[in-house]
Amino acid sequence: MNSELRTTVGGIAPVDPEVMKRARIRQARLTKPPGSLGRLEEISVRLAGIFGNTRPEVTGRALVIAAGDHDVVRQGVTAYPQDVTAQMVLNFLAGGAAVTAMARRLDVDVTVVDAGVKSPLPEHPGLISLRIGPGAADISEGPAMSREQAERCLVEGARIGQRAAGAGSRLVATGDMGIGNTTPSSAITAALTGMRPEVTTGRGTGRNSDQLRHKTGIVARALAVNDPDTDDAIDVLAKVGGFEIGVLAGVMLGAASRSSAIVIDGFISGAAALIATRLCPQLGDRLFAGHRSAEAGHSIVLDHLGLEPVLDLDMRLGEGTGAVLAMPIIEAAAACLSEMATFDEAGVSDTGSEKSATT
Amino acid sequence: MNSELRTTVGGIAPVDPEVMKRARIRQARLTKPPGSLGRLEEISVRLAGIFGNTRPEVTGRALVIAAGDHDVVRQGVTAYPQDVTAQMVLNFLAGGAAVTAMARRLDVDVTVVDAGVKSPLPEHPGLISLRIGPGAADISEGPAMSREQAERCLVEGARIGQRAAGAGSRLVATGDMGIGNTTPSSAITAALTGMRPEVTTGRGTGRNSDQLRHKTGIVARALAVNDPDTDDAIDVLAKVGGFEIGVLAGVMLGAASRSSAIVIDGFISGAAALIATRLCPQLGDRLFAGHRSAEAGHSIVLDHLGLEPVLDLDMRLGEGTGAVLAMPIIEAAAACLSEMATFDEAGVSDTGSEKSATT
Repeated sequence: MNSELRTTVGGIAPVDPEVMKRARIRQARLTKPPGSLGRLEEISVRLAGIFGNTRPEVTGRALVIAAGDHDVVRQGVTAYPQDVTAQMVLNFLAGGAAVTAMARRLDVDVTVVDAGVKSPLPEHPGLISLRIGPGAADISEGPAMSREQAERCLVEGARIGQRAAGAGSRLVATGDMGIGNTTPSSAITAALTGMRPEVTTGRGTGRNSDQLRHKTGIVARALAVNDPDTDDAIDVLAKVGGFEIGVLAGVMLGAASRSSAIVIDGFISGAAALIATRLCPQLGDRLFAGHRSAEAGHSIVLDHLGLEPVLDLDMRLGEGTGAVLAMPIIEAAAACLSEMATFDEAGVSDTGSEKSATT
Repeated sequence: MNSELRTTVGGIAPVDPEVMKRARIRQARLTKPPGSLGRLEEISVRLAGIFGNTRPEVTGRALVIAAGDHDVVRQGVTAYPQDVTAQMVLNFLAGGAAVTAMARRLDVDVTVVDAGVKSPLPEHPGLISLRIGPGAADISEGPAMSREQAERCLVEGARIGQRAAGAGSRLVATGDMGIGNTTPSSAITAALTGMRPEVTTGRGTGRNSDQLRHKTGIVARALAVNDPDTDDAIDVLAKVGGFEIGVLAGVMLGAASRSSAIVIDGFISGAAALIATRLCPQLGDRLFAGHRSAEAGHSIVLDHLGLEPVLDLDMRLGEGTGAVLAMPIIEAAAACLSEMATFDEAGVSDTGSEKSATT
């Protein structure tokens, strides 16, 4: 592993179990029946552990969207032409995409990264141009990229994640754009979870049953041709990944090294998280799953990461849309733990808590 | 029905099917694979119909929390003492409750209403004091309130809902506080859906199995003793309801009469919605269910209203917490429909949409 990357990974602090314990005690004293905030309670306790504060305060919301192309599209694995990746990056920059409409409304800072889009993109103040390669190579015929490129994805992504995290205590969300990128994500998921391509491969953006069978075959071929070393996440990224996937894995590591919590979006971000958590297992405690994507392989990723998604709205768009939507809820969970009065402070009678703890 | 109430109900416009149709066409042309925004798409189309605009814009978020007491608590149906209702109202006003922590963070205007709390409450600029009665009477022995009081709940609630709606195009959420109020809500749900108390009655704030059996018996007794006219929602409210439930039903009608969309919280708001939609069936098209409460009867209410909840976070607190959390998501759905570019506008290739429509 590259030395800068090793430093980043080494800088990711474990969540603080002592703070989480005290946060749980505080949570139980707040003016509400114990457990009545449901999933928000566990979210808030984890945020306490991440930020090292029993009164966690989220100080900002940032989203990094990484874009990249995939020459495996020439195998007919997707419905849209490859040019759409670049067109959608321009749409992000113009504010016309779903995620940018949401981000404006929900006050999320957006960073767009050209990790490796095929077509050249114009310079734009809102675009970070890494262009680690002109689209990942066709993984059904050979590796997506060199190991050096894979490391560069992670290092550059980590720098971007660190900037997005700012001074910490922020929520950093990840999103993707890349026509064809459910195919490498299915391959990564198969390689790193040990599940078969038949279950890690889904319909992506509109495959019928025959097309799905074909796509599954391409994923299987990518794994057979490249034979990635499943004990080496960087090798998996290089062999069957993609530039935006590598950058997103780096973003997670970088943001975590600056004490942020990370909200991952759907299947592509999930595949990136599989890579990132292999490089740094304790990163997993800092991850929140924004939503459960309708893409089949995503549930396998979530199970493997041990994450329960915040939302389940039958979405399958990517871009970070599912992550952005979950941010206000995660923030509200923190606000409850930080700002609610305890029974003592509020002078509210607490004779019910013993009994209600029995539910 | 009181004439002011009749005017309010008469002022609730049906949602516009023509606008919804055009919104659906616009939704299909936005720069994303068709259907990929999942549940957000149907939410956005309904908002278009409610606001009469294919580019619906939500202009603000308001929450009305109504509080009331229930003398049925003397039958041992709940874990907390009756005083907690008043104590929690003070906690709302001091900003120490879960819903007020969330509302601050999510920028929601909160109005707190004393619909009928037992203990007197001090004057406070943030509190609307209706005090229609000193707590609802014990419904296991007779009616909760007079028919006149029930009508007053609806009329006063509607005025508050109209104020909360402002000039319209707002989201108005409803929340409740009332120790013991799952018991009348179970009775209302049984009366208005035809389901038996055994399925409409849940554990509320911490009942064990024996206590749940006892509580179910109390609900059944309330229905037997009062024999509400199930074709007359005002009679149901008067016989087995509560002051805060009536006020919330009124809030929904009032907000709807000012062209707002309404986000209902959990079981208590759901029982109020059953009453309000009986008085004005077309109100139902303006309702969104913020979440699925862990309280058993709530799912029956949602089925009856034909509503799919936005969130499912295992919460069972009330106060409006589940409604408030859903507001940013509903707003984001509107923002996507209103602000996203179409394929033509953005110059994005749309050759995939035909194929992806087959999924």
